[in-house]
Amino acid sequence: MKIDVYGLLEKVREKKPVVHHLTNWVTIYDCANIVKVFGASPVMAHAKEEVADMAKIASALVLNIGTLTVDFIFAMKIAAKSANEKGIPVILDVCGAGATKLRDEKCFELLDEVKINIIKGNSSEVARIAGENVQTKGVDAVAVEKNLIEIAEGLAKKRNCTVVITGKEDIISDGKKTLLVKNGCEMMSNIVGTGCMATSVIGTFAAVGSDLVVAAAAGLCCFEIAAEIAAKLSNGPGTFKEAIYDAVFHLDKKTIEKMQKIDIAREIV
Amino acid sequence: MKIDVYGLLEKVREKKPVVHHLTNWVTIYDCANIVKVFGASPVMAHAKEEVADMAKIASALVLNIGTLTVDFIFAMKIAAKSANEKGIPVILDVCGAGATKLRDEKCFELLDEVKINIIKGNSSEVARIAGENVQTKGVDAVAVEKNLIEIAEGLAKKRNCTVVITGKEDIISDGKKTLLVKNGCEMMSNIVGTGCMATSVIGTFAAVGSDLVVAAAAGLCCFEIAAEIAAKLSNGPGTFKEAIYDAVFHLDKKTIEKMQKIDIAREIV
Amino acid sequence: MKIDVYGLLEKVREKKPVVHHLTNWVTIYDCANIVKVFGASPVMAHAKEEVADMAKIASALVLNIGTLTVDFIFAMKIAAKSANEKGIPVILDVCGAGATKLRDEKCFELLDEVKINIIKGNSSEVARIAGENVQTKGVDAVAVEKNLIEIAEGLAKKRNCTVVITGKEDIISDGKKTLLVKNGCEMMSNIVGTGCMATSVIGTFAAVGSDLVVAAAAGLCCFEIAAEIAAKLSNGPGTFKEAIYDAVFHLDKKTIEKMQKIDIAREIV
Repeated sequence: MKIDVYGLLEKVREKKPVVHHLTNWVTIYDCANIVKVFGASPVMAHAKEEVADMAKIASALVLNIGTLTVDFIFAMKIAAKSANEKGIPVILDVCGAGATKLRDEKCFELLDEVKINIIKGNSSEVARIAGENVQTKGVDAVAVEKNLIEIAEGLAKKRNCTVVITGKEDIISDGKKTLLVKNGCEMMSNIVGTGCMATSVIGTFAAVGSDLVVAAAAGLCCFEIAAEIAAKLSNGPGTFKEAIYDAVFHLDKKTIEKMQKIDIAREIV
Repeated sequence: MKIDVYGLLEKVREKKPVVHHLTNWVTIYDCANIVKVFGASPVMAHAKEEVADMAKIASALVLNIGTLTVDFIFAMKIAAKSANEKGIPVILDVCGAGATKLRDEKCFELLDEVKINIIKGNSSEVARIAGENVQTKGVDAVAVEKNLIEIAEGLAKKRNCTVVITGKEDIISDGKKTLLVKNGCEMMSNIVGTGCMATSVIGTFAAVGSDLVVAAAAGLCCFEIAAEIAAKLSNGPGTFKEAIYDAVFHLDKKTIEKMQKIDIAREIV
Repeated sequence: MKIDVYGLLEKVREKKPVVHHLTNWVTIYDCANIVKVFGASPVMAHAKEEVADMAKIASALVLNIGTLTVDFIFAMKIAAKSANEKGIPVILDVCGAGATKLRDEKCFELLDEVKINIIKGNSSEVARIAGENVQTKGVDAVAVEKNLIEIAEGLAKKRNCTVVITGKEDIISDGKKTLLVKNGCEMMSNIVGTGCMATSVIGTFAAVGSDLVVAAAAGLCCFEIAAEIAAKLSNGPGTFKEAIYDAVFHLDKKTIEKMQKIDIAREIV
């Protein structure tokens, strides 16, 4: 199966979907800007009085618990319920799950009370949400003993959603189809924000693609190809981040088709 | 009328005014940094217990509702009342007006309860505040049918203030004098933050210039000349933003006088 | 005394300590990213329900009152008490002290109610905390008449902690040993964030070094050497900031030993 990554990117650029975020205060600019540079229209709004209205004019909703508070999670639920009603995809970045009790509890509350279409995190975050006994090191992943593909597939089935585990190889599964994105580079892990940006990119592609596994994989693939290009054009982590934006903006069909590395790990027909 | 844009820039650099902000969490760094790079002194403070004190040591107050909450608007009112008492200009960026009911309501509350000296937004945001029936697409402008100069002039008269509509051509009017700034470039609309930064620049220039129409036009002109220079020196939206800061920092008399494009659309003597 | 600056940097890179922050919304990304680029693991979390847990998995706690609120300070106290219990260093950036009554009061509350191991600020901020009658200009330093080394040493003795005053020459004192870091460059004062980043770097080095005066001096020295390198490789304040990250990432033994400028102002044996 050759996934039409560029076709989805073109759709993003044509439709310019509004992607509504309730995200963290650390990388909020980068989340907004990566969506913008992909050609879509980011909006960040978290007041409980307006999140339902904002979700209604959006094509996807991105939730990221990076700097959660109890009130913020409350607003997320209102936004998600509105998104659920409208039928737009809701993406949850379980940022820092496994680091504190509050994070775990609030992730489970969100998963139980609203419909989350895509759960996304690094290996130890997703493992924790899948019920494994791992302790995340703040927001950085720690080693997980169990097979990650099995964790992703198991959680996808259990929660009836798509699961994305990012890492050297990204795993994307809805329990039936499992894709591996093998793009990306080491330098991505040397700066803050690539994980959150990846979630926003997944939201952007989910806004235009009906198959969420394919959309998530295509978004990650584009973002990571841009990172590979940026790593070659920059002198270190500072110039690297700016070069990612440049590279995303200039992504074309030829480059993507030459560089994309997406494998199928499983497909149940 | 040849506006002395460089003269005002020099005044900013000499006086280094404190510009107090209550702004959004997305572009807060960029708002602060653009003020700093212009040679002024940004301060961001939003606790209701201190905003009045902070406004008292400032020379302008910038309000931006990008990530508003009800409490945040409450603090804005306290800050604005303090600024009004001191007689320093208050600039309101009606970011996202027309996108949700909360945004519209809170803008009108601010306009009704405190003195706003400059209202600033993109075409559909300002149109909405002027009473037009438009729906903003999140924080991005949508087409407005009515003549924008008339909207700006009408709102300026109605609210007895200066109105700034940014776009390909910026419109600045106090109902008697209307200026058009024709600087800037396409790349500005490909990144997040240029709109908010423009508001902070307007606040910075309003802090040193008594004619708010001239001050706002001069600030926008400088910022947009820097953007034109940056676009030529950069490889895409990421390096473009950093190059704007470099260009602002190096702006000199010769460059500004050569590049500035400000037209008078109307002047009632 | 030749301080082994590189030795401490190596320790940061090897141990990758988690540095927990409750910081401001303006420079939160830069605080996180500078920690990351130094090779450590930043985490930003401020919910009162989780700060104690997060501090427990950290090796240092950084508090920065830049955009304080009353609730935020409350969460800081919980985090600091947890850090005190665990015995990890707590660093307080008294950002904007001397600008408003709220800032002064909340700094004193923190200093009285929890154990702060390192107080850090610019000249007028620290002077205010030491009891001098100075009015900070927002978050920018104003001239202080009294001798700054004496202020640092006096405050260190009074509060039984380490005091850092940043400026053209940084002063670091615990009342017995006083070091001067003479690295850094003018361009650092032309952008927003270098002060906050310096605090996060101090926290990062304090996480691995038991002598807090030496750790703070070594961190500042590394950060400022990187800034000196960045100033030479960049075209202005925008590209300068990105170049700092690049330079930090590439810092090596030879460069540090060649460029480090740390003097001993006083040492009581």
